[in-house]
Amino acid sequence: MRDFSTDHRWLSINTATVRKQGDLVEILDACARRGIRAVAPWRDQVATVGLDAAVRAVRAGELELSGYCRGGMFPADPSRAAEVRDDNRRAVDEAAALGAACLVLVVGGLPQFSRPGSAASKDIALARSQVEDGIAELLDYARNAGMPLAIEPLHPMYAADRACVNTMAHALDLCDRLDPGRTGSLGVAVDVYHVWWDPDLEAQIARAGSERLMAFHVCDWLVPTSDLLLDRGMMGDGVIDIPRIRGWVEECGFAGYSEVEIFSQSTWWEKPMGEVLDTCIERHRSVV
Amino acid sequence: MRDFSTDHRWLSINTATVRKQGDLVEILDACARRGIRAVAPWRDQVATVGLDAAVRAVRAGELELSGYCRGGMFPADPSRAAEVRDDNRRAVDEAAALGAACLVLVVGGLPQFSRPGSAASKDIALARSQVEDGIAELLDYARNAGMPLAIEPLHPMYAADRACVNTMAHALDLCDRLDPGRTGSLGVAVDVYHVWWDPDLEAQIARAGSERLMAFHVCDWLVPTSDLLLDRGMMGDGVIDIPRIRGWVEECGFAGYSEVEIFSQSTWWEKPMGEVLDTCIERHRSVV
Repeated sequence: MRDFSTDHRWLSINTATVRKQGDLVEILDACARRGIRAVAPWRDQVATVGLDAAVRAVRAGELELSGYCRGGMFPADPSRAAEVRDDNRRAVDEAAALGAACLVLVVGGLPQFSRPGSAASKDIALARSQVEDGIAELLDYARNAGMPLAIEPLHPMYAADRACVNTMAHALDLCDRLDPGRTGSLGVAVDVYHVWWDPDLEAQIARAGSERLMAFHVCDWLVPTSDLLLDRGMMGDGVIDIPRIRGWVEECGFAGYSEVEIFSQSTWWEKPMGEVLDTCIERHRSVV
Repeated sequence: MRDFSTDHRWLSINTATVRKQGDLVEILDACARRGIRAVAPWRDQVATVGLDAAVRAVRAGELELSGYCRGGMFPADPSRAAEVRDDNRRAVDEAAALGAACLVLVVGGLPQFSRPGSAASKDIALARSQVEDGIAELLDYARNAGMPLAIEPLHPMYAADRACVNTMAHALDLCDRLDPGRTGSLGVAVDVYHVWWDPDLEAQIARAGSERLMAFHVCDWLVPTSDLLLDRGMMGDGVIDIPRIRGWVEECGFAGYSEVEIFSQSTWWEKPMGEVLDTCIERHRSVV
């Protein structure tokens, strides 16, 4: 397992972590100034500054992208299939323009939440089949663009409204069916927040192997958690044994960035950007 | 699948559903007056009125107990093993005195939350082994008392603080190891709120079979959910396809009560007891 204690060369900052404190260009500048080598931006943040300005800021900071957030939200009314397809293809194109290591897929939940305006449904099995179909179609396009797709299983508490793929096992079943040759074009993003509770986690990480472990995200699970979406903790402030999970991932050959992704409405989004980034660096070295 | 539309003979009320509106005797009286035939009380509600008064109210209302809530909370400092053991034995004794169909086990999460004052730990695997040891020990006592134990897998969002058994598969693995003969002394409580998201649910219900399906709990998952613990929805107000899951359970031979268990701080706990119970009856007939 790599030693993170002496530097932060393997730290990446998901730019949602400081999304309230500045625009994407300001965030990338602040990261670069601290010697942070990688980031993972969100599409809405890129859209706000414009793709060209985002590309320039990435180059100016000599930054890598550990991932790009996000494609997905596949379940939708059938009449909106073209909209979903085109939206995801644009995400692939943006990821490629930015030089991202992968496009992270948050696959969507029930159609009324995945693509608001779609007819209400309680059929999660149907949503799951729409997800599989959507990834299958996008995969051809992404392969042509040279952009790997990373399915991110989300915590089961998001099954209805954000992602109906909620375990590593389910995500890897999709990978097995859609990319049986393990070509490196389809894999998973492992976010400790979403999967730490899974008794099958170690085995599923081993099953994934290095071809399919495309991203590793960290934050922490707080007790109590005051909000289902916006109360993620800074690494070390919660209950997740992050080094144990990182050890499992690295045993399988993952040697990429450890990406900090924290949505924290009442704590970290309220602090100055520099303080948050400095804390991420310190915790990356001490508790990840 | 049984037809629930013409009466509510298979409705049970978990008394936490109206815990803010009256004491246990008042709740049991209100249920009996409505022709509700079964309830599932909580230990703290029994303690408030006294076990003898609770037993008298159960008899006066000619009520069955679809379950008794709850034993468990096994992870703890080793020095507190006797306290945990004795507490759970008392729960078995109370359940037997009340004539409960089973004692529901909420197994506990990390020790500092399961039994406050225990040393802080991030080792969920260790907590899980403590749970297994605790159930194994309690099972002997419960068998002698003739009281079946029903492990309730809780939603993964409670893994840290309430229960580190979060899937049917995990609960049934415990059953297989601790009661390989399927004697009926150990099984599971299936609460749709906790397990609706699981892509493996239908298969695990089939695996459980009638010997191990000891309780069936209903409420609904709201989107958005404003609180991790206290924002459960009334059946029909959320996204869970309850009849589909009830169908799976009944296909396996489950023929017991459908127990309504709703913790709802800002909605249902704020309404008069009679209105809540009448709504449970109506929704039991129309959407369960």
